[in-house]
Amino acid sequence: MKVSIERGDLLKALGRAQSVVERRNTIPILANVLIEADGDAIHLRATDLDIEVLDKAPAMVERAGATTVAAHTLHEIVKKLPDGATVSLIANAETGRLEVHAGRSNFSLATLPRDDFPVMGTADYPCNFSIKAPVLRRLFDKAKFAVSTEETRYYLNGVYMHAADGPNGATLRCVATDGHRLARIDADLPDGADTLPGVIVPRKTVGELGKLLSDDDMIIAVSVSETKVRFATPDITLTSKVIDGTFPDYTRVIPKDNPNRLEVDAKEFASAVDRVSTVSSERSRAVKMALDEDRLILSVNAPDMGAADEEIAVAYDADRLEIGFNAKYLIEIAGQVDRENAVFHFNTSGDPTLVREGDDESAIYVVMPMRV
Amino acid sequence: MKVSIERGDLLKALGRAQSVVERRNTIPILANVLIEADGDAIHLRATDLDIEVLDKAPAMVERAGATTVAAHTLHEIVKKLPDGATVSLIANAETGRLEVHAGRSNFSLATLPRDDFPVMGTADYPCNFSIKAPVLRRLFDKAKFAVSTEETRYYLNGVYMHAADGPNGATLRCVATDGHRLARIDADLPDGADTLPGVIVPRKTVGELGKLLSDDDMIIAVSVSETKVRFATPDITLTSKVIDGTFPDYTRVIPKDNPNRLEVDAKEFASAVDRVSTVSSERSRAVKMALDEDRLILSVNAPDMGAADEEIAVAYDADRLEIGFNAKYLIEIAGQVDRENAVFHFNTSGDPTLVREGDDESAIYVVMPMRV
Repeated sequence: MKVSIERGDLLKALGRAQSVVERRNTIPILANVLIEADGDAIHLRATDLDIEVLDKAPAMVERAGATTVAAHTLHEIVKKLPDGATVSLIANAETGRLEVHAGRSNFSLATLPRDDFPVMGTADYPCNFSIKAPVLRRLFDKAKFAVSTEETRYYLNGVYMHAADGPNGATLRCVATDGHRLARIDADLPDGADTLPGVIVPRKTVGELGKLLSDDDMIIAVSVSETKVRFATPDITLTSKVIDGTFPDYTRVIPKDNPNRLEVDAKEFASAVDRVSTVSSERSRAVKMALDEDRLILSVNAPDMGAADEEIAVAYDADRLEIGFNAKYLIEIAGQVDRENAVFHFNTSGDPTLVREGDDESAIYVVMPMRV
Repeated sequence: MKVSIERGDLLKALGRAQSVVERRNTIPILANVLIEADGDAIHLRATDLDIEVLDKAPAMVERAGATTVAAHTLHEIVKKLPDGATVSLIANAETGRLEVHAGRSNFSLATLPRDDFPVMGTADYPCNFSIKAPVLRRLFDKAKFAVSTEETRYYLNGVYMHAADGPNGATLRCVATDGHRLARIDADLPDGADTLPGVIVPRKTVGELGKLLSDDDMIIAVSVSETKVRFATPDITLTSKVIDGTFPDYTRVIPKDNPNRLEVDAKEFASAVDRVSTVSSERSRAVKMALDEDRLILSVNAPDMGAADEEIAVAYDADRLEIGFNAKYLIEIAGQVDRENAVFHFNTSGDPTLVREGDDESAIYVVMPMRV
């Protein structure tokens, strides 16, 4: 293998590929990136055995070939090279090293054989559809805050993507919950997605997917099987196993007829919750919401540290109500609201509360109350 | 106590005071800040028993008085209040709480009695002098990177400030070393500093001092005794115990007649060292410098990971020399160089190397070589 490549192109491709590589690996080759040079491009492949990224960058290929080197080390080196440099990568068959040259800098890196690199088997994907990057980004971005990090509840450690009947018809839906709060985000069902099996996309995959979706004009090709999901742009393919588990029936925790409606400026609400929760110790961050006609009083009482309250003008004309929540959950949900106002639908102080963004039905949140 | 104060003024003063307060305290009152209201200002006092900061901010004092509250909590609250808010602080004698009001936000914070707050005893300071903030900042800023973090060598855990005979006469000098590298920074001896006893200013104090020295026009009043040092501006007084130990005789480790002189662009040198050291594992970051006529080759060889080299054009006309250094030490020293060029004076590959900033004699560095 012998190629020349612009430092910026290599850095961009390597940056995306190396981010799936774990810092600590018991299997040495998983620390490496597979570099394949052919035609007028190099292809970079990195994996943690659950996720695989395949990326490409334009290059002058003088001699085709392939090798694997430490992903983080090569990424660090390319990052430190001067902007605009031309990098040449030469696999030296004699020494078994990959030589990296740029200007007066020379590196020779230990390699492992390309044949040892685990390439994720190609599967049949019965469901294939295309979706605009911003639409897919919204589905995952707005749901992911609710993903559980409890390893014992592995079936909640991801975002559940499936086809559903939404309020406005056939819907591509992402749901995440940790048992304390839930997010349900909808988009129009793309052509070909009606056969979508419900899949739980792991948290790490959701994070990596975010990096593919930065370009608003990009169309993402999504392929789904019972065990795998693949997201592809012309340059990058991200393949991931899905979580082998059953996502719980979330529909029964979404309250339908909560009668008490509160409308409040989302930013003002989040700031006020953040302020009053300052006096509470980290663990028991319960904020009490006391609702009366067009008036909300947020309060926290932490006997050892102190107390705090703040009043906000709101739109509320239902019964008086006192209800408590984890401050962090309120702040996170209010932070999801893209419109000006958040709308809360309460039942009693013991029932789950529904939160919406204005009158938008394509993004709803549920949060469980706490006793205060 | 009852005062009104502009949020920005309170935040600035609290920010400086709370930074000496440790996050974990076995003695509860050390988590608190002492607030004293009198005249047209409030005075804030915080301590960790080794360092004390006394700070003030203009305020409308309606009722003089004093109390102590959790420093970090109050700081967090004030930080979260909206810009431009007026904050009122009211010590409620009945409840024993400090009430904090701003707009529609109300807080009541647990207090501890002011009399329990440990106030550092005022000492006699036999040595007093004034010095411009930028001069004092340079002395400590350029020395502190070499301070040791090894607790067993407690007498190296600070910057040694003393009066000395420098190359250009009487000198106020700061020295720091960890046994592997050393920094010696000089300034003209201010009036009154000739009686300065040598004191070791602890690392944490050096960090806090940096925050006092941001204003270039400020004159700092420095007072020194055998056991304490005090730095004061009109608004802030920082008092610190000094390290009770003897700083080693550093003069004998500074080489006098190293014959081999290398001159190199400091930034280019640092970048090149940083690049070649990428292939080395964290622990043994040895970089070899191979010197020949007007040529420097930097190289690293890490058998398991790979190798790297880079050539730099330099000014060098002495004997051929190969010498190794810890990459981190080279990068840090090169980062101190304010002029364009760093000048190295080598003896043999086993002897300490002297580094200077161009021909400036007021800042010199010594670094021990490593075997490579």
